[in-house]
Amino acid sequence: MTETKQMVEEMKGWIYAAAERIKMSLKNEQLEIETKSNRTDLVTDMDKDTQNFLSKKILAFDPTAKIMGEENGKDHLADLSGRVFIIDPIDGTMNFVLEAENFCIMMALYEDGIGKLGFVYDVMKDEFLYGGPAYGVYCNGEPVSLPENKSLDQGLVGLNHVMYRKDDYHVQAIGEIAMGVRMSGCAGYELINLAMGRRVAYISRLAPWDYAPGGVLIEALGLKMSNITGAKLQLADREVFLAGTVAAYEACLQLANS
Amino acid sequence: MTETKQMVEEMKGWIYAAAERIKMSLKNEQLEIETKSNRTDLVTDMDKDTQNFLSKKILAFDPTAKIMGEENGKDHLADLSGRVFIIDPIDGTMNFVLEAENFCIMMALYEDGIGKLGFVYDVMKDEFLYGGPAYGVYCNGEPVSLPENKSLDQGLVGLNHVMYRKDDYHVQAIGEIAMGVRMSGCAGYELINLAMGRRVAYISRLAPWDYAPGGVLIEALGLKMSNITGAKLQLADREVFLAGTVAAYEACLQLANS
Repeated sequence: MTETKQMVEEMKGWIYAAAERIKMSLKNEQLEIETKSNRTDLVTDMDKDTQNFLSKKILAFDPTAKIMGEENGKDHLADLSGRVFIIDPIDGTMNFVLEAENFCIMMALYEDGIGKLGFVYDVMKDEFLYGGPAYGVYCNGEPVSLPENKSLDQGLVGLNHVMYRKDDYHVQAIGEIAMGVRMSGCAGYELINLAMGRRVAYISRLAPWDYAPGGVLIEALGLKMSNITGAKLQLADREVFLAGTVAAYEACLQLANS
Repeated sequence: MTETKQMVEEMKGWIYAAAERIKMSLKNEQLEIETKSNRTDLVTDMDKDTQNFLSKKILAFDPTAKIMGEENGKDHLADLSGRVFIIDPIDGTMNFVLEAENFCIMMALYEDGIGKLGFVYDVMKDEFLYGGPAYGVYCNGEPVSLPENKSLDQGLVGLNHVMYRKDDYHVQAIGEIAMGVRMSGCAGYELINLAMGRRVAYISRLAPWDYAPGGVLIEALGLKMSNITGAKLQLADREVFLAGTVAAYEACLQLANS
């Protein structure tokens, strides 16, 4: 496959269209909100509706494509061969419900387990990071290049609040070394920030749809990611995710496993 | 004094003008960055320059006004009688330096120790909350009313990461009860969010210029604030600040002092 400009533009178009639907829903509708695994694990009708909307676009584009997504029972794929789309229809559902901002629509395209394209759109901020290893990485049409290789003590680190409270993997020490800790409740927001040089590292407990779309982009830029032990992410169950500049990633990996 | 529309518009104009200078500096200049009390307590030439710019506007408007501000040795006022302006030229200097967003220009007008007007401008988001108890509270020209009185377990809480790491005042229990914890590194951002119903509470260690401008606005709306023991904030030294909806404020106060 060649990740042509036409193909990237088509996929961006799906996501912009999905964003318009979501923005309309914020203006016009009463959201239907349900809980999933626990009281803070929310899903709305717009999460499900957006995943269906994107799935239809994908299958019209390629009826043979497989789809993995956060909602609608599509959260596992045993076989990652061929063309696989991984969707998070609304990343940061809690923010969508309680802030009406700081949420992202995200989509990744993998082929035979290799990340080809990633799309992370912060809808209300209108900041869209997209591209891939062959295509290059862009933010709102402007090329993005590898940010400065700042060390952990030179930048901000995005952390998960439950992990920080429990000091899982020594994240409190990591936060203390960093210039500051940020918690946004949105993996897409953190990975855009990492790509744009506004974070030196990000650690959280994430599912494939949380990290795959941004992950394709940060790896394409030359930033590092893995699970917290340094192993390759499996695109299967939830894992503790670590990403950063080369320097900050190495420092976090060492601290987390010390 | 009557806080006329003309006067509010004039003060908004100073802040918009200061914001233009700051945005120009992000495009054109190499920031001069120094540390103050410790390695993460930053000040840039733009903090100092912006405070001077606003101070000149204030003294041209009222040569008898007193000024308290974060920078330039203006950080204490023994006598709060008469007309006092309290300025934070760049609230969230770390974000200004490392993110080039998520910082606010803030200004409060007090008369004889009573908050009359507050201005909190999130420059890059272009979200401007302003007004006062007599004038009403507005966001970008639209009237803002008291948000729903959500309980702590119904919303997001903004917390300071050092307090959260050290579990000062049981903020970890507070975070566990809330729907989620957010850390932004910017008091103004958190207080706009509280006023707009995107937070139920906010706890941090703050100086007068951090809380006075937003504080005037959240009290004008009918939200609650005090220091963490429930005592009136002193507009003097740094204090642990608590603000929230009535319900979440009371819950935090009880948990913090239990």
